[in-house]
Amino acid sequence: MSFAVGYLGPKGTFTKKAVDTLFPNNQAMSYQTIPACIDAVKFGHVKYSVVPLENTLEGTVNLTIDYLIKEKTLKIVSEVVVPVRQHFMVHPKWKADWQSVQTIYSHPHALAQCHHFLSQTMRQATLEPYASTGAAAQYVRDHPELSIGAIANDLAAKEYQLDIVKADIHDLDNNQTRFVVLHKNDTALRVNQLPLKGFKTMIMVVLPTDHAGALHQVLSAFAWRRINLTKIESRPMKIGLGHYYFLIDLDQKMDDILIPNTIAEIEAIGCNVEVLGSYPYYLSADKS
Amino acid sequence: MSFAVGYLGPKGTFTKKAVDTLFPNNQAMSYQTIPACIDAVKFGHVKYSVVPLENTLEGTVNLTIDYLIKEKTLKIVSEVVVPVRQHFMVHPKWKADWQSVQTIYSHPHALAQCHHFLSQTMRQATLEPYASTGAAAQYVRDHPELSIGAIANDLAAKEYQLDIVKADIHDLDNNQTRFVVLHKNDTALRVNQLPLKGFKTMIMVVLPTDHAGALHQVLSAFAWRRINLTKIESRPMKIGLGHYYFLIDLDQKMDDILIPNTIAEIEAIGCNVEVLGSYPYYLSADKS
Repeated sequence: MSFAVGYLGPKGTFTKKAVDTLFPNNQAMSYQTIPACIDAVKFGHVKYSVVPLENTLEGTVNLTIDYLIKEKTLKIVSEVVVPVRQHFMVHPKWKADWQSVQTIYSHPHALAQCHHFLSQTMRQATLEPYASTGAAAQYVRDHPELSIGAIANDLAAKEYQLDIVKADIHDLDNNQTRFVVLHKNDTALRVNQLPLKGFKTMIMVVLPTDHAGALHQVLSAFAWRRINLTKIESRPMKIGLGHYYFLIDLDQKMDDILIPNTIAEIEAIGCNVEVLGSYPYYLSADKS
Repeated sequence: MSFAVGYLGPKGTFTKKAVDTLFPNNQAMSYQTIPACIDAVKFGHVKYSVVPLENTLEGTVNLTIDYLIKEKTLKIVSEVVVPVRQHFMVHPKWKADWQSVQTIYSHPHALAQCHHFLSQTMRQATLEPYASTGAAAQYVRDHPELSIGAIANDLAAKEYQLDIVKADIHDLDNNQTRFVVLHKNDTALRVNQLPLKGFKTMIMVVLPTDHAGALHQVLSAFAWRRINLTKIESRPMKIGLGHYYFLIDLDQKMDDILIPNTIAEIEAIGCNVEVLGSYPYYLSADKS
């Protein structure tokens, strides 16, 4: 059986929240790693895959970017930004005694994001890093005999029937994660149930090695056409220090004239350019 | 007692190789984490600290960059590039039977870098990720009764009296790591025993939020003065998606006119600029 959507699992993670927002009525298949999610689309086991691209606190997810560059055949067809809201949850058996739990399980990033709550309210507890927030919640569900709790999202609490005993324990209010949808061809994926925030085009540029001001020249080609760049990021080409791929987000969708002309010109000065996708982006409201 | 140099330990890591190259006659103190190394300079427990900044394969060490931005009081005073050469080593007891060892310990990056050797020659062995290459070598030294080996550098083999049974097992020949030396003030650290490769100046720029072409304008200010940029990197400001620090490496040392004028001008268009250091850089030859 082939599923419509693959995602970085397990259930109850923030990636699963992104999947539920984008594909509310589809069966989704979880994979254990980002490369496995990407391969699943490439080999046709799923039609789309949803992977994290960037987080407010942690920055770019390098594994996603490095794989996207490697698998140039796949296209980004949509993007959704999901707010990161962390809650402290325990098995219903421990609800009354939640403040005395001995060990708290979660993803290392989630533990870091809830430093204030953990150091003030849960000083006595040992922190135990876990592979994902969803897996931490599952472990708590499976061990009602232990005095433990998990930090995870509302979806994980629902999925694993845990009680949220303290909501919104994250230090920073506007922490968000960007997720992208990958697909075999470049048909933009429109999502009717979410308000459209705009369009982006992501390109990868390799500069010529013998040309000192090449990056400035590339940016000039966009600047005089008033094509706004919302992000520029370098990643190593893995062939030697000083060799980089540049990933550039353009604040508009692919057109017939301006972007193609710019790309043709920067190729003419010796750059190698790939369009990773031109796609709509959405903001997911957290209803909880 | 205060040590001259702090570094990311334990003994026998690539950071220790950088320390031995830069400070051959000094006692060095190892710390367990990058933030601990940086704090050690800040609080005066050591005069200098050596931390990894960038690797050919893995890219920038985000933790180092994020801490450097946060601790703006510290300066980068020198840089050394160390070739990454990985070797397979065992306890002398297992030297004859090295091809049959059951478990191989190393840092996850080192295991990934030796994929070819591991999948061809050591197919039967289980791979065990460890905190560092040095710690993996120490574990092998401490357990002569176990059928195990480690992937680490020549310094680790010497430090822990292990036998290198297969040298240079890394897939990619020109893998290198850049290390920087941090100090409380901006006195460049000259290293007489290494040939000087040149000078760099690293600056951090925060762009004004209300100004779309600001990055292009910043690069223009350097370009028309023919100040060459060798690297540009973005890191999240951790206040919301779309807000970045830019780290820019300039291919020359701080002067009295050109760089100060450029900085004054980009500050005048609303950027926030910090000079993280202006320093000599060196290439360490691997003598083994």
